[in-house]
Amino acid sequence: MIENPFYGHEFHGDYDLVSIGKLDLEEGGSIPDCHLAVATFGTLNDARDNAILVSTWYSGTHQIFRDVYIGPDHALNPEKYFIVVVDQIGSGLSTSPHNADGPNAGIAMSRFPKVRIGDDVVAQERLLREHFGVETLALVTGGSMGAQQTYEWAVRFPAKVLRAAPIAGTAQNTPHDFLYTKALAEAITSDPGFNGGEYTSNADVVDGLTRHAGIWAVMGFSTEFWKQEVWRALEFESKEAFLAGFLEPYFTAMDPNDLLSMAWKWQRGDVARHTGGDLAAALGRITAKTYVLPINEDMFFPVRDHVAEQELIKGSELRVIDDILGHLGLFGVAPTYIGQVDRHLKDLLDTKV
Amino acid sequence: MIENPFYGHEFHGDYDLVSIGKLDLEEGGSIPDCHLAVATFGTLNDARDNAILVSTWYSGTHQIFRDVYIGPDHALNPEKYFIVVVDQIGSGLSTSPHNADGPNAGIAMSRFPKVRIGDDVVAQERLLREHFGVETLALVTGGSMGAQQTYEWAVRFPAKVLRAAPIAGTAQNTPHDFLYTKALAEAITSDPGFNGGEYTSNADVVDGLTRHAGIWAVMGFSTEFWKQEVWRALEFESKEAFLAGFLEPYFTAMDPNDLLSMAWKWQRGDVARHTGGDLAAALGRITAKTYVLPINEDMFFPVRDHVAEQELIKGSELRVIDDILGHLGLFGVAPTYIGQVDRHLKDLLDTKV
Repeated sequence: MIENPFYGHEFHGDYDLVSIGKLDLEEGGSIPDCHLAVATFGTLNDARDNAILVSTWYSGTHQIFRDVYIGPDHALNPEKYFIVVVDQIGSGLSTSPHNADGPNAGIAMSRFPKVRIGDDVVAQERLLREHFGVETLALVTGGSMGAQQTYEWAVRFPAKVLRAAPIAGTAQNTPHDFLYTKALAEAITSDPGFNGGEYTSNADVVDGLTRHAGIWAVMGFSTEFWKQEVWRALEFESKEAFLAGFLEPYFTAMDPNDLLSMAWKWQRGDVARHTGGDLAAALGRITAKTYVLPINEDMFFPVRDHVAEQELIKGSELRVIDDILGHLGLFGVAPTYIGQVDRHLKDLLDTKV
Repeated sequence: MIENPFYGHEFHGDYDLVSIGKLDLEEGGSIPDCHLAVATFGTLNDARDNAILVSTWYSGTHQIFRDVYIGPDHALNPEKYFIVVVDQIGSGLSTSPHNADGPNAGIAMSRFPKVRIGDDVVAQERLLREHFGVETLALVTGGSMGAQQTYEWAVRFPAKVLRAAPIAGTAQNTPHDFLYTKALAEAITSDPGFNGGEYTSNADVVDGLTRHAGIWAVMGFSTEFWKQEVWRALEFESKEAFLAGFLEPYFTAMDPNDLLSMAWKWQRGDVARHTGGDLAAALGRITAKTYVLPINEDMFFPVRDHVAEQELIKGSELRVIDDILGHLGLFGVAPTYIGQVDRHLKDLLDTKV
């Protein structure tokens, strides 16, 4: 393992690290002692029927949900629900390449095994059942890779998921997204400082991480975000200052192997693995009341890719979020964003199932 | 200079290299002996009023126009028009970083000066006037960077351009495109083999050029191109085979400095340089009958960016080309592409001006 101060309480506030023991992985191998970083909000009621699971996106953690999505004024209301946000494996907070030590020392850094969306969901299910005593979920939600995990939950454990709200992400990753993520990964691995994953600090890979941020700038926001200079609302003077002051430091603080672990997972998200490649059959398993929430300006999870899947889910609804930021609208920067999410999630939570 | 067999008659067929003498550049400095590679089709009539100028896009040359756009069955009909295709400076055929020698030896490789769209247009105007005796153009057209040059012609030399048809490109480059091109350039310059532009062969930079191709894969085609596996029509077995057999060899054959010279130029295309930054005033200078031809699935020159400019051009028309390939639809791979372009260009050429 290596030290990286970004992944800790100073930057991520309160969370617990919970061991779920050994986690065998779909691709083979295992995590000897898998820890999940978990932030909870609210209280589980006596009926144990008010639990909501939130899973995290590429580079994201529970922090953004705590700061933007969860609160008494939001659909994710801790006065009503017991909200469990689980940071994904490879997030840098849960067991990840850079922090593997102790029993996990053998899988540190470049030796970290390949982890799939399904591995996360299996780990989360075990955590909820064994640690929190939660057997059914009033709602599963998440954005981007969190949407991938949401779909995986609804297909893998249909009886446990009463409602599902994937935001800006698909059940089966698209080939275009695979290539996009490949370009992101190559920006990192091509940096000589990456050294095959055996760098001594993320600072060794600052050039690669900066180029990785530069590719996010192209695909993460919409063309109109840049044209309308929406970054001015964030009090930057130029797009270059916005990159240097926001997007680049956001990513250069992170661990290269951790990002690559998540990127590999993202590329291969696919619920049709449960049904021999038949996506319709996989989505046909879903019994959760499902709202599919794309962002209209998303460059790499475009609305039409959501529609194609939503039409395969019984009783589902398409609820398109209007946000000029595009995919990174998930950050909730636009003042009009979270209100839309809240309205859709409230409608969904108010639906009897 | 260095040898690169891609840039020659074997791969590009017939063309002439014409010296237009010293070319002073907008950014300062000059090309001591600027050569333009020119392919012509048809004959200039006695009235000298049947000339059409075609300019080239990033990485493209006259070759694609010869093979796809020009012929007796096309709007660009050499039996009727005298069609002059000029390869842009930096294209690798005209004076470019890799081929600078003789009087240009002092600007070879990393010492090549910055060239702007306006420099190309000034060079083309001199070529047409001094070498071909052409003073007015029945049509100026081109795709992508060729569209940038088309707009520059129509704004800089309004009296000389009777009709203009920019395809899949804008008069003022967008900030999103600037960032996209930045990512493309950084894929090349970050390769240690690039060596600050002083490599001994493009093969030294094959890794960077391959990553550059990988970013083109993400933005050059549409998300639906990949989802519908349109590459199967080109007889590839997988998207990986398509990349390895088409897009990667396409770019790895090319010269890194040449691509970077074009990328720098592309980033800064802007007709508003003529009017102190006032785009409406610049486009208001256009007297050419103008058809604006975006491609509906273009990821980085989206239709709406064309519309915003088209609305500022008097008497212009928007003609949207339907092509699932997206921007690289310009290659004319889809059997439905060239027919649309021909129809629009024929309508335009048939318009009395």
